[in-house]
Amino acid sequence: MSAPSRRPFTVEPWTVREPELDLERLGQTESVFALSNGHLGLRGNLDEGEPNAIPGTYLNSYYELRPLPYAEGGYGYPESGQTMINVTNGKLIRLMVDDEPFDLRYGELRRHERVLDLRSGTLTRDAEWVSPAGKAVRVRSERLVSLTQRAVAAIDYRVTPLDAPVLLVVQSELVANEQQPRFVDDPRASAVLAAPLAHERHHADATGATLLHRTKRSHLVMAASMDHEVHGPAGLSVQCTATEHLGRTSVICRLEPGQELRLVKYLAYGWSSQRSLSALDDQVRAALSAAHYTGWDGLSAEQRTYLDEFWSCADVEIDGDAELQQAVRCALFHVMQAAVRAERRPIPAKGLTGPGYDGHTFWDTETFVLAVLTYLVPDAAGDALRWRQSILPLAVERAAQLGLHGAAFPWRTISGLECSGYWPAGTAAFHINADIADAVVRYVAAAADTVFERDVALELLVETARLWRSLGHHDAEGEFRIDGVTGPDEYSALADNNVYTNLMARQNLRAAAEVAVRHPRTAAGLGVDSEEMASWRDAAAAMRIPYDEKLSVHPQAEGFTDHAVWDFEDEPPGHYPLMLHHPYFDLYRKQVVKQADLVLAMQMRPEAFGDLEQMDRNFAYYERITVRDSSLSAATQSAMAARTGHLDLAYDYLGETALIDLDDFAGNTDHGMHIASLAGAWSAIVAGFGGMRAGPDDRLAFAPHLPTALARVSFGMHWRGRHLRVAITPDEAEYRLLRGEQVRLAHHGEEFELSGAEPQRRPIPPLPPRERPEQPPGRAPVPRRPGG
Amino acid sequence: MSAPSRRPFTVEPWTVREPELDLERLGQTESVFALSNGHLGLRGNLDEGEPNAIPGTYLNSYYELRPLPYAEGGYGYPESGQTMINVTNGKLIRLMVDDEPFDLRYGELRRHERVLDLRSGTLTRDAEWVSPAGKAVRVRSERLVSLTQRAVAAIDYRVTPLDAPVLLVVQSELVANEQQPRFVDDPRASAVLAAPLAHERHHADATGATLLHRTKRSHLVMAASMDHEVHGPAGLSVQCTATEHLGRTSVICRLEPGQELRLVKYLAYGWSSQRSLSALDDQVRAALSAAHYTGWDGLSAEQRTYLDEFWSCADVEIDGDAELQQAVRCALFHVMQAAVRAERRPIPAKGLTGPGYDGHTFWDTETFVLAVLTYLVPDAAGDALRWRQSILPLAVERAAQLGLHGAAFPWRTISGLECSGYWPAGTAAFHINADIADAVVRYVAAAADTVFERDVALELLVETARLWRSLGHHDAEGEFRIDGVTGPDEYSALADNNVYTNLMARQNLRAAAEVAVRHPRTAAGLGVDSEEMASWRDAAAAMRIPYDEKLSVHPQAEGFTDHAVWDFEDEPPGHYPLMLHHPYFDLYRKQVVKQADLVLAMQMRPEAFGDLEQMDRNFAYYERITVRDSSLSAATQSAMAARTGHLDLAYDYLGETALIDLDDFAGNTDHGMHIASLAGAWSAIVAGFGGMRAGPDDRLAFAPHLPTALARVSFGMHWRGRHLRVAITPDEAEYRLLRGEQVRLAHHGEEFELSGAEPQRRPIPPLPPRERPEQPPGRAPVPRRPGG
Repeated sequence: MSAPSRRPFTVEPWTVREPELDLERLGQTESVFALSNGHLGLRGNLDEGEPNAIPGTYLNSYYELRPLPYAEGGYGYPESGQTMINVTNGKLIRLMVDDEPFDLRYGELRRHERVLDLRSGTLTRDAEWVSPAGKAVRVRSERLVSLTQRAVAAIDYRVTPLDAPVLLVVQSELVANEQQPRFVDDPRASAVLAAPLAHERHHADATGATLLHRTKRSHLVMAASMDHEVHGPAGLSVQCTATEHLGRTSVICRLEPGQELRLVKYLAYGWSSQRSLSALDDQVRAALSAAHYTGWDGLSAEQRTYLDEFWSCADVEIDGDAELQQAVRCALFHVMQAAVRAERRPIPAKGLTGPGYDGHTFWDTETFVLAVLTYLVPDAAGDALRWRQSILPLAVERAAQLGLHGAAFPWRTISGLECSGYWPAGTAAFHINADIADAVVRYVAAAADTVFERDVALELLVETARLWRSLGHHDAEGEFRIDGVTGPDEYSALADNNVYTNLMARQNLRAAAEVAVRHPRTAAGLGVDSEEMASWRDAAAAMRIPYDEKLSVHPQAEGFTDHAVWDFEDEPPGHYPLMLHHPYFDLYRKQVVKQADLVLAMQMRPEAFGDLEQMDRNFAYYERITVRDSSLSAATQSAMAARTGHLDLAYDYLGETALIDLDDFAGNTDHGMHIASLAGAWSAIVAGFGGMRAGPDDRLAFAPHLPTALARVSFGMHWRGRHLRVAITPDEAEYRLLRGEQVRLAHHGEEFELSGAEPQRRPIPPLPPRERPEQPPGRAPVPRRPGG
Repeated sequence: MSAPSRRPFTVEPWTVREPELDLERLGQTESVFALSNGHLGLRGNLDEGEPNAIPGTYLNSYYELRPLPYAEGGYGYPESGQTMINVTNGKLIRLMVDDEPFDLRYGELRRHERVLDLRSGTLTRDAEWVSPAGKAVRVRSERLVSLTQRAVAAIDYRVTPLDAPVLLVVQSELVANEQQPRFVDDPRASAVLAAPLAHERHHADATGATLLHRTKRSHLVMAASMDHEVHGPAGLSVQCTATEHLGRTSVICRLEPGQELRLVKYLAYGWSSQRSLSALDDQVRAALSAAHYTGWDGLSAEQRTYLDEFWSCADVEIDGDAELQQAVRCALFHVMQAAVRAERRPIPAKGLTGPGYDGHTFWDTETFVLAVLTYLVPDAAGDALRWRQSILPLAVERAAQLGLHGAAFPWRTISGLECSGYWPAGTAAFHINADIADAVVRYVAAAADTVFERDVALELLVETARLWRSLGHHDAEGEFRIDGVTGPDEYSALADNNVYTNLMARQNLRAAAEVAVRHPRTAAGLGVDSEEMASWRDAAAAMRIPYDEKLSVHPQAEGFTDHAVWDFEDEPPGHYPLMLHHPYFDLYRKQVVKQADLVLAMQMRPEAFGDLEQMDRNFAYYERITVRDSSLSAATQSAMAARTGHLDLAYDYLGETALIDLDDFAGNTDHGMHIASLAGAWSAIVAGFGGMRAGPDDRLAFAPHLPTALARVSFGMHWRGRHLRVAITPDEAEYRLLRGEQVRLAHHGEEFELSGAEPQRRPIPPLPPRERPEQPPGRAPVPRRPGG
C-alpha cells in the first residue's frame, strides 16, 4: 500500500495527464482514461489497438450468458451467469507509415502524452514517433463519448509527417470478436468469453460501414456503425469495405512534412432484445447522421456545456492537498460517467470501464453510488431506481423460489436474474434489499418527488418490506430476529441478527408503512392493508439489535464478539487480501472484518447507536479487527472516523478511497474503475468532514470539521429543488443557497434559515481530544502527506 | 414411504429371492444382488449384460480424477475430485440361441428367478426363455466373489435346450469402457466418466484372455484376466481372442434337448499405482491359476466355510418379524461384504455395490460401519483405521493448508485427498476427525489390542487432538469454544459449539492424553510432552456445551433453539427431501433437522446428558423437527427411542433402517446399498433394544428391552478376545460366553461375572410409561407390522 511510485499521472487540478507512456501500466491507464456516458463505454485503448492490456468497448446491459458450474449443486443455485462482453470495437484506427505499422513497441517514441480533461470530457493523445525506417510522424487524437447523444462517440485523428514525405494508410475500423487476453485465475477477475458475437448483417457505403451481430446464447442484437470526415491533400483515396466481423475505411495519401491528414470518425451503437435487425440498423444510422450533422466541434461544445452544468453543482474544492483535489474531481467524473445516461439500466460496479466483476451491479450501487448521484445528478439516481422497479417481477419470482414473500433482488446481475455462484456471500446477503429501500428513501427525501414516491418508491418499499417480514420471525420473547444472513462484511457469513441488516430492515419496514399511508389507493392496489402495515411496524419495533454488555460494544452479529480474534500478529504482510491465503471457513468464524459492517451501520443509521461515546467505542473496537481487504471499506471508515472526531485518520482513509485508481491501491484497476469507492470519497468529505445528514425528517443537517492538513473544503449539492454550497475552513462554515427557495438547515445542532439573499456563516466548535484508534499491524491507512 | 408394494423380493430367513424379473427395479436388484469382498465388487447385472440400469464392476480405490468446477472459487477448494470407475467387466457372458441373442426383452420369459444366498455367498439365477423363433432354453448361473481369494470371482454358467436341438454360441468376455447410462441431475448421484480406461496391453491364450489398462488422469494400472473350464458335448469349439478393450472366449456347440453346456469362468483382478505392467499381469494370472486350481467347488466350499464362521458370531435372530429377520441378515451380509477384504483401503458409503457418492468414504464409515465391524469382524475394523493412519500425511498437510495443527481428514475421499466441492457441508464438518478418534477408542476397548493402541491409535488420537486444540479457543470466561463448524445434521451449517462436535472433541482430547500416558516413549516420538497433554485436558475440561435453560433442552448448537421452527404444516408431502425444494440458506437458519445430530450426540456420549429425563426431553424436542431426509438418521432415532423407553417407536425406525434397500425407502438403492444405514440396523438392535454400552472404563453393559411385537432377539459379538451371545425375551435376558475367558458384564446396572460354564439369566425390569414423541406431519416412520 505505498502510493506515489505507482502513479503514472501528474498532479493538476482539472486534468489527468500521463506525460509519458508506461506499457507496464497500460491496464491501469486504459481504465482511468475510459470514456463513458453510462450507455456506451470505451476503454482508454490506444487508437491503433495494440499494445493493450484489455481491449474494451461496452454497451450497458449487453451481455452473454455462460454456465455457472458447481462441484456439488443445490436447489436455487443459478444455472447461468451473465458477462458483459467486449462489443464491436469502433475506436480502432490503424496507421501505416510508408511500409511500417505505427506501433509504439517498435521504432522510437520521442514523445507521448495523454490527457483526460475533466471539463471537456475528452481524452487527447499527442505522440511523436519515428518508424524503424526513420520516418518521423506526429499523431494527435481526441476522443469523446457524448454525454448529450448517448449512442455516439467520436474521434478526431490527425497525422503529420515531421521530417520527410511519407505515404500514409489510415485504416479506421469496426472489429467484432476482438482477440481477448486470458485473465489470471483470480476470483475477482471476470470470466472471458471468446468470440461471443455471431454475424447478422454488414454493409459499407462511401465513407463508413455498419456491422450487426447477435450474441449466441443471450440472443441480444447489436449494431455498430461508423462514418468519417476526411481532410487531407488532393489525391487522397477513401475506400470502404465490410465483411462479417470487420468494417474498414481506408484512407491513403502522400503527405509532405507539415501537411496534415485529419480524420473525424463518428460512431454510433445500439442494441436490443426485441427490435428487428432493420430497425436497429436504422437506429444507429440515424444516431450517426445526427452526430455527423452536429459535427466534431458541435459534439465537443455540447460536451463542455453539459460538464459545465455538472461541475457547477458537483465540484468539490480542496485547498491544501492538490493530489486529493485532482483525485476527487477525477472520482466524480467517473461516477458521473458511469451513470448519467444509463437510463433505467443498471450501473455496474466498474461502470463501463472494464470487465471486472463481469460487468455486474451489486448493492454498492445503491449504498455508495446513489448516495452521491442523489445529490449531484438526481435524475440518474431516479433512473437507477426505476431500473430496480423494472426488475421487480424477477425479484418477486426469486423470492418465491426461495420460499419468501415480496422481492429478493439479485446479489449480482445485469439483467435482473441472480448471477451469484456462491450463495453464502450472494443470495444470503439479503441486505441488498434494504439497501435499495434505503436509496429509495434517500432519493425521495432529497428530490421531494411525490410522483416517484407513489409510482416507484412505494412498490419497491412494499415488496422489500414483505421480504423482511417473511425472512424474520418473532422469538419466544417477542423480539424480531433475522437469522442466517450475511451482512456487508464478506469475512463473515450466515450469522443471526447482523446489526447492519436488522437496522436497515427496520428502516425498510417503517418506510414502507409510512409511504403506504401517504398513498393509500396505490398501496391498496398492491394489496397492502392496515393489518400488513401493522405487521411491518410491529416487526420494526421489535427488531433485535444485539449488544455485548461485557465489552460495551455492538457485536456485528449475534455472538460475533465471542469468536476468536484473528491472529494478526502472525500474519505475513504479503498475506493480504486474506481470502487469497485462508479458507472462508476460518475467516467466517473469527473476528476479522474485510469491510466496514457495524461501522457502516453506524454511518447509515446513527440514531440507533445512542451517544457519540458509544459510536466511538464501537469504531475503535472494529478498527482493531478491520483489514480493509475490500475497496468498499475506506470511505466508510473515513466518514465514521470524522464523525467520531478522528479527523486525521479520516483524512488518511479519504486519501485511500479517492486515490484507489490513480494510485492503483487495490492492484486491479486494470479491470476497471472502483466506482463505489470513488463515490465514497465524496461521501467521506460531505458526510464525514461536512457531517452532512439528511435525517428521516427530511431535514438537512451539517456538523463540519476539517482535518489539520486542509485549509478549506467546499462542496455543492442538490436538495429538494435547491442548489446549495457549503464551504468549510478550520474555524467556520459558510452556507450558500445558489438556486431555489429558502431552506432550513442545521449546523452542529443549531437550526437556521438559509435564503438566496446572503450566505450564512457559523463557527465550528472545537473537538474533544480523542485517542487515535489502532488498526491491525500493517493495516493502518497510508499516512496522507498533503501536496503532490 | 410405503413399503411392501415396492419390494421385488420374497421373505425368507437366509435368502433374498426375486421370484420374477422386474425390469423397472433392475437398478435396485443390481445393488441388492451385488457381490463383493471389499476389494472387488460386481453389481448384480444379468450375465448377458443387457438390459441393465447401471453396469458395475469395481475395484476398491481404483478411481479416475475429474476437475471440480466452481462458479466462484476460493482458497483451499479442492481442484480435483475422484470417482470410482466401472472397471473392465468380466461377468459378461452373452448367449446366442441359433441366430438370436438371449435377451429377456425379446421372446418369452417363462420363468426367471434370482437368489442371493446369505450363507453360501452366491447369487444364483435360473431362467427359462423361449427365443422369438420358438427355441426354449434353460439358463442357470451361479456367481461368487471370493471371500478367501480376494482377487477372484467365478461364475458357473449352464445352458440346456428344452424342446429342440439348438446351435449355441456362448461369448464369455472382458469388456473395458462399457457404455454407461447418463445419470439424472441429482446431487446425490455420482458423476459419470465415459471411457476412463486407456489400453496398455492385452493377450489371449487357449481358454482365456487378459486386458491391462491405465486411467488417463490418475494413472492407475489395472489388469483383468479370465480363464474357463468348458464342459459340453463332443465337437464343441473354443476360441479366444483379445483386442484393446475386449477379451472374448467363444464356445460353440450343438445341443440336443436335455444336454448341457457348462462353462466355469474364473476371473482375477488387480490394480496398482506402482507395480509394472508385467508384475501386474503376472499377479492376476497367478490369482487366476490359484482360482482355477481351487476349482468352482473348492471356491464354493471356502466361501461357505468363511460365512459359517462369520454367521456363528454375527447372526441376529429375530422371532416375531420374518421380514425384519431377513432384512437384518441381508444388512449384515452387505456390511461384511463391503469391508472384509478391503485391507487398509477405505470402505465406501455404498461399499462396492454402485457408483453412488462417487465411491467416496465419509464419516459414516467410522460412526456407523465400524461400530458394527468392531464387534463382528474386528480385523476389518482395525484395517479400516490403519487406512486412516496411512493417509495421515495428507490429513496433516490439509490441516496446515487450513491454518490448523494436527490432522484434518477429508470429508469425502478415495485416496485421502479432500474431494468435497461444497465446503460448508464438507471441510467445515470437522467432526469427522473426532469420529475417527471415537472409532479408534472403540476398537481399542473392544479388541484390547495394545500393539494397535501404540502403533496406530496413539498417532491418530494425537493428531486429531492437535486439530481440536487449534480449532477451538478459550473465550473470556475460560470456556473452550469451537466456532463455525458443521455438525452431522446437513440442514445446519457453520454453527458455534455444535454439541455433538464439542462432546466428540472432548473425548478425542481426553483419549489422546490418556493413551499418550500409557505409551510415553511413542508419544514423545510424536513430539507430545506433558504441556501439550495438559492443554488437551484443559480444553476438554473447559469444553462449552450450550444448554437452553428456558426450554430445558440442549440446543443442537449455540442459538439453535432461538431459530424459527420450520413450517412443517405447509410443506407438501412431495417436498421431501427438503433440500430438493428449498435452498440451503433457508434450511440452515431454521429448526429443521435432516439427520440425528443432538440425538446422535446422546447415543455416542450419553454420560454428558445427565439423567434419562433430560435425554427424553431432548429426544422428544428433536423428534418434532427431524425430517429424516438422510438414510443416516433412522438407526440413531431407533437406538435413542429405545434408550429413552419408546420401544415401539424404536421398532418402527428399525424397520426403516434395516429395510432401506430391500424396500428402496430412499428411492436411490439403484446407486448402491446404504452400507451405514444397514450397519445402523445392528446398532439399533444391540445398542437400542440390547442397551449395549461399551463404557469408557472398558466395561460392557446391557440394558435390554424388547418392543411388544418381538418375542425374542438374540445377537452375538466379539469382546476383548471373547465371543458373547445375548438373547432377549420380553421378560428376561440370557447371556452366554461362547469363547474366551470369564468376563464381567452389567445388566441394567447390576454387574455380574459370566463364564463359559453356564449362561446367566436376568429379569428385565418394567419400563415407566412414556408419551410417544411426535414427528413432523407425514414424517413419522412407517408403522411396522410384523410378519411379511
